[in-house]
Amino acid sequence: MRLRIDLRYDGTGFHGWARQTALRSVQETLEEALRTVLRISEPLTVTCAGRTDTGVHARGQVAHVDLETDMPMRELMRRLNGLLPEDVAVTAVAVAPEGFDARFSAIARRYVYRVCDQPTTWDPLRRKEVLRVDQPLDVDRMNEAATRLLGEHDFAAFCRKRVGASTVRALLTFSWERVAPGLLEATVIADAFCHSMVRALVGSVIPVGDGRRDASWPATVLAGGVRHSAVTVMPAHGLTLEEVRYPADEELANRARESRQVRGEVHQRG
Amino acid sequence: MRLRIDLRYDGTGFHGWARQTALRSVQETLEEALRTVLRISEPLTVTCAGRTDTGVHARGQVAHVDLETDMPMRELMRRLNGLLPEDVAVTAVAVAPEGFDARFSAIARRYVYRVCDQPTTWDPLRRKEVLRVDQPLDVDRMNEAATRLLGEHDFAAFCRKRVGASTVRALLTFSWERVAPGLLEATVIADAFCHSMVRALVGSVIPVGDGRRDASWPATVLAGGVRHSAVTVMPAHGLTLEEVRYPADEELANRARESRQVRGEVHQRG
Repeated sequence: MRLRIDLRYDGTGFHGWARQTALRSVQETLEEALRTVLRISEPLTVTCAGRTDTGVHARGQVAHVDLETDMPMRELMRRLNGLLPEDVAVTAVAVAPEGFDARFSAIARRYVYRVCDQPTTWDPLRRKEVLRVDQPLDVDRMNEAATRLLGEHDFAAFCRKRVGASTVRALLTFSWERVAPGLLEATVIADAFCHSMVRALVGSVIPVGDGRRDASWPATVLAGGVRHSAVTVMPAHGLTLEEVRYPADEELANRARESRQVRGEVHQRG
Repeated sequence: MRLRIDLRYDGTGFHGWARQTALRSVQETLEEALRTVLRISEPLTVTCAGRTDTGVHARGQVAHVDLETDMPMRELMRRLNGLLPEDVAVTAVAVAPEGFDARFSAIARRYVYRVCDQPTTWDPLRRKEVLRVDQPLDVDRMNEAATRLLGEHDFAAFCRKRVGASTVRALLTFSWERVAPGLLEATVIADAFCHSMVRALVGSVIPVGDGRRDASWPATVLAGGVRHSAVTVMPAHGLTLEEVRYPADEELANRARESRQVRGEVHQRG
């Protein structure tokens, strides 16, 4: 049987989602908790929708795992949360619908990047999930720049190069909002992201907001088609994977088949 | 000259506001930063509006300090924040108006206590400022109970006993709101609080919310007039001092004089 697991984590103490030898990862933490709770002796692999980098947080991560159990899902969730460390929590466990693949069935990922641009509103309680910048940012200029990046493009200019992997993505939303005095949120939604893409997109627009670059600059970088050394990949801690979107159940299998064809080799990362 | 300093802190790593030998406190941290920035060799005392306990946070703490400097206030704030550790930040520094006393001029303190009552919405990123409870809470019942505590009363039943200190307080607001699915906020405003009062008030209403007590129980405890062993003082980490209110400038000195007469010996604590 396949289970769908929804989870949240504070990325501060993890070396990202992906299991790595001798480094603490969300994947390994969750896999080991599942093995312990269900008394499974063989290894087990959990697959997620958004392979977050070191320090990136998640409030809407979705994963799947194949295993056999007759434990009620409610009970499984309760026991997992009893065992998991305090920086990760499971918010739902369910038998996945037919055709569901956490990674390949997804139609979109929504990330939010948070920035504080006013020292008088800096909140130490949120320092692990908000980036502090020194200059006030002009949201209108940033939206002007961000809008020009929307649509399906080859985002090679904003991606870490991977041989043989497509960097064509559909950027559905890239908008900035001042949600409170001194606090900006960038919402970035795409069908999928290549490695470091969200943080590079945000990094191309920040210098527009503080006046160092024209609003046309990020689009010029995009058109260049190659990784641009002047684009800063923003620090991980401002970034949170907020949501993964899936189609209606009857479309899950089709969507997964299509995604595998289009970019089997590419990892969806924040 | 007297300075007014507004500050915020994550209380997790502090043994409360008040300076204590060999324990890390907000007061000492701020005092030492001031002495360093202004090259003051003698000791110096910062007085605050709400002497938060170990683990209690602040977003709206206000303090004053008497010292001499010709450094512009903007520059002083910038240098303080450059020196302070990441869990405390100064959000404003200004020459205090005539008659201002951070503690005695205050007319009200606003605290918020945050509780998550639904595992499916638990957010590990906010675990340092939200208490998790196992049972769903009924906000209407809690408000029914909380409302009965409003007004000026002797809150001895909810206070740690201090010899010779009055425990009469005016509770102006005590209301519960479900601000998001699974997330409740209790707003508690009084002219001042005695030690552990906010957390004992919250602790008397939680068992009403989960059905263990009648809505009349907290008022019965209040009427008893003595510390009630069945009232749980809630954990500190759910509590945040959000705001301190002051009268118009021309009333500051009068208010301070009145407060000193009424409760010179009592500390305002969360």
